[in-house]
Amino acid sequence: MTDAYTALLDHSRETSALGHVAGRLGWDQETMMPRGAAEQRGEEMAAMTAVLHARRTDPRLSEWLAEIDDSALDPVGQAVLRHTRRSHERATRVPARLASEIARVTSVAQGIWAEARAKDDFQAFAPTLKEVLSLKREEGAALADGADVYDALLADYEPGTTAAEIATIFDAMRPRLVALRERVLGQPEPDGLSGTYDEAAQMKLSRHVARAFGYDMSRGRVDKAVHPFSSGSGNDVRITTRTDPADPFNCLYSTIHEVGHAAYEQNIDQAYLFTPLGQGVSMGVHESQSRIYENQLGRSRPFTGWLFEQLRDTFGEIGVADAEAFYRAVNRVRKGYIRTEADELQYNLHIMLRFDLERQLISRALEVSDLEDAWNTRFETDFGYPVDRPAHGVLQDVHWSVGLFGYFPTYALGNVYAGCLNEALRQAVPDLESALAAGDPSPATDWLRGALQTHGGLREPRDTIEAACGFAPHEGPLMDYLEAKFSELYGL
Amino acid sequence: MTDAYTALLDHSRETSALGHVAGRLGWDQETMMPRGAAEQRGEEMAAMTAVLHARRTDPRLSEWLAEIDDSALDPVGQAVLRHTRRSHERATRVPARLASEIARVTSVAQGIWAEARAKDDFQAFAPTLKEVLSLKREEGAALADGADVYDALLADYEPGTTAAEIATIFDAMRPRLVALRERVLGQPEPDGLSGTYDEAAQMKLSRHVARAFGYDMSRGRVDKAVHPFSSGSGNDVRITTRTDPADPFNCLYSTIHEVGHAAYEQNIDQAYLFTPLGQGVSMGVHESQSRIYENQLGRSRPFTGWLFEQLRDTFGEIGVADAEAFYRAVNRVRKGYIRTEADELQYNLHIMLRFDLERQLISRALEVSDLEDAWNTRFETDFGYPVDRPAHGVLQDVHWSVGLFGYFPTYALGNVYAGCLNEALRQAVPDLESALAAGDPSPATDWLRGALQTHGGLREPRDTIEAACGFAPHEGPLMDYLEAKFSELYGL
Repeated sequence: MTDAYTALLDHSRETSALGHVAGRLGWDQETMMPRGAAEQRGEEMAAMTAVLHARRTDPRLSEWLAEIDDSALDPVGQAVLRHTRRSHERATRVPARLASEIARVTSVAQGIWAEARAKDDFQAFAPTLKEVLSLKREEGAALADGADVYDALLADYEPGTTAAEIATIFDAMRPRLVALRERVLGQPEPDGLSGTYDEAAQMKLSRHVARAFGYDMSRGRVDKAVHPFSSGSGNDVRITTRTDPADPFNCLYSTIHEVGHAAYEQNIDQAYLFTPLGQGVSMGVHESQSRIYENQLGRSRPFTGWLFEQLRDTFGEIGVADAEAFYRAVNRVRKGYIRTEADELQYNLHIMLRFDLERQLISRALEVSDLEDAWNTRFETDFGYPVDRPAHGVLQDVHWSVGLFGYFPTYALGNVYAGCLNEALRQAVPDLESALAAGDPSPATDWLRGALQTHGGLREPRDTIEAACGFAPHEGPLMDYLEAKFSELYGL
Repeated sequence: MTDAYTALLDHSRETSALGHVAGRLGWDQETMMPRGAAEQRGEEMAAMTAVLHARRTDPRLSEWLAEIDDSALDPVGQAVLRHTRRSHERATRVPARLASEIARVTSVAQGIWAEARAKDDFQAFAPTLKEVLSLKREEGAALADGADVYDALLADYEPGTTAAEIATIFDAMRPRLVALRERVLGQPEPDGLSGTYDEAAQMKLSRHVARAFGYDMSRGRVDKAVHPFSSGSGNDVRITTRTDPADPFNCLYSTIHEVGHAAYEQNIDQAYLFTPLGQGVSMGVHESQSRIYENQLGRSRPFTGWLFEQLRDTFGEIGVADAEAFYRAVNRVRKGYIRTEADELQYNLHIMLRFDLERQLISRALEVSDLEDAWNTRFETDFGYPVDRPAHGVLQDVHWSVGLFGYFPTYALGNVYAGCLNEALRQAVPDLESALAAGDPSPATDWLRGALQTHGGLREPRDTIEAACGFAPHEGPLMDYLEAKFSELYGL
């Protein structure tokens, strides 16, 4: 190790620790913070952001990066360099004036969006969205430095993957999803659960399930929050979930989803702690973990068979007669407008709509004034019925208001990656079904830990999936899985 | 305002915000953090400490401080300068090598102390304490820059007050306290409570009492922790308390005590938020608030009369017949070894013992090898019976293990200040008793807010008390109060 590399590692270590602190503050804000502290917290967070930005743009990083000979380093060192170089480059490319303007505008925009959604009035949000979009176009151009602007924004969430690559995947999926969706919705709708479910008992069962999926409670904790999330890395990875007395699936599947994210963070090689490799490598890879835990494992027939017994033992009569009816209830496909409430099948169509529209917004092929029409037209094309109100359409997601352009596609990319991993997993663990039927997903989560999670940021996102699966990721496995599952379920 | 002063204020604002973040992290560590995160958190805290240290030693501060003409500023500006100059001076005087050595040694020492206490073996702790003491002597010498070393350490907790001033006060108190203690303990011991107290009901009543004492729950929260504490400033001030099913006083009076600290922080003028004036001015002044809330108000006859009815309504039979017997139970004086369990009367004797011993340790008049003997001799002199085991004597407090030399006297100084404030309060609010008898301490807490709390760090600690009371603080009011209260209670 050269002196420059040692200095860079020390610097990176402290930056990483401060990043953890900012993350803990974010968790506190969503779970524990008294409501009267919001404004004060804004200033505290801004101070942390300024500290982190100053570290990422530290001129000494340029010197060290110039001095170090990458080829003399081992793969871990090379990965550290790759992450550090990228983060430094991105932080220095965006002028401070623009970064603080984006922070200022988006902090206000979220409130305006929420109000517009409550009033079902896109026009009340449109001027603000125009402003956010204009700033993000400017930021994207600064980051792109002559290359594709949308790709530059995407790189914050899915580095090393281009929009064109994603579009190729999505374009192959879309007709198959539209067709499958149409066939499924032509069939009679299965029954859902009925009854009321004690919320403390839901939380207790969810904690049990979280542990079964490998969540280490001694290095995490479960709280309730309005929007479930996972937060933290290494030995302090916390999740939140929520309860609905009429719907135990809300709590259970939110928990399993967040455990997927959290287990990924907890299982990264401890040697990478406080290095750029010590956290999930991208949003898409992260989502692949939450999705395979939630869907390919958690919504599988054998696991739902076990879960049915648990629910019956805990709550008595739940409104479905047997494990098969329960499996149908878990995987019920229904018409709906809202992305976050969508099933495995339709979810991806929601994402593709947003991906195509936001690419057009960034490239100026679409302007905010035409966005609502574009949304409504596309929705009716893919879903077969019109949006009934803006809150169910163009106003439903917070993302654009806070400037998250380039984030949406990572959700569906995560599904595609989960499909690939599921195929490899089933090959690697042939007797998985019997473990799942006993409520034990550990053979699957063990495989995921060794094949993927432990490596953290060692490889680029796509390479992370390829190394785990043994083949380059593509949409085939996910589509085959969805078509087989729902054809069988709905007797198509 | 000059440019230099504006720059200094901006810098101070961000430093203060980062200080808040570090405080929130400390709160999390004691309340929410999963146990497996301890080591990782240590590194995160160290990174925050390094950031704060770098800001406090920022060479630009020296330039701004040299450039600003204090006399051209208003009293607020002058106070900001005084705090900033002191903090900058102290941070720059301690060599980085020494600061990090103290951090390293004390982080390990606490564990060694805890183990030694569990094993009742002072020798197991002595070598570590020697090391801590030696480092703190070195730090004190660096801070003192030729002046008194103990005073230099004291200034971290009680700036502007010397050990000689405190010794004068304590020396006047000690014989009166020893004499009063002896007379009280010659009387029959009043009955305590009996029964079992539902912990949720204790917490509910404590929250009610916290609100009655002016704690703003919309800018705070109450959680349970092993050691009750208050944390934060401005609009996010959290407290913790604890419950004991056999002893509702533990929860109630811990809560009132912490509310005293928290209300002080919440009530500071909002204009001082994110300046050095936006937090309690010293440990002694802080403790004066917690103590007057807890003792002069919370343990007063009228308030305990109201509290007796509440406890009876909530828990039924509690083992004492009437309000008078309850008042005696609340204020019961008993033999004991432990500072944190001591009553209002004996508490100060515990502090004086520690103050005298730690001054001698710092001045090298006493060495660690002789500390246990010195403790035991002094204890028997003041309390009249010997220490039965080290865990009840020299090993009982965590403070010295983590290097807190100079901290102990602020507890008793807080009591002295509370005595002064109580005298002024009774003059200012003559009809206080009837409000307290109705469970409403707000006339007292309102007066304290206006006379003291709102001013935050505007004045030096002693001047803060003097401005509120209208006279220079001295031990007279506390001693008169204690002698009157306990003479009446015990029929002396």
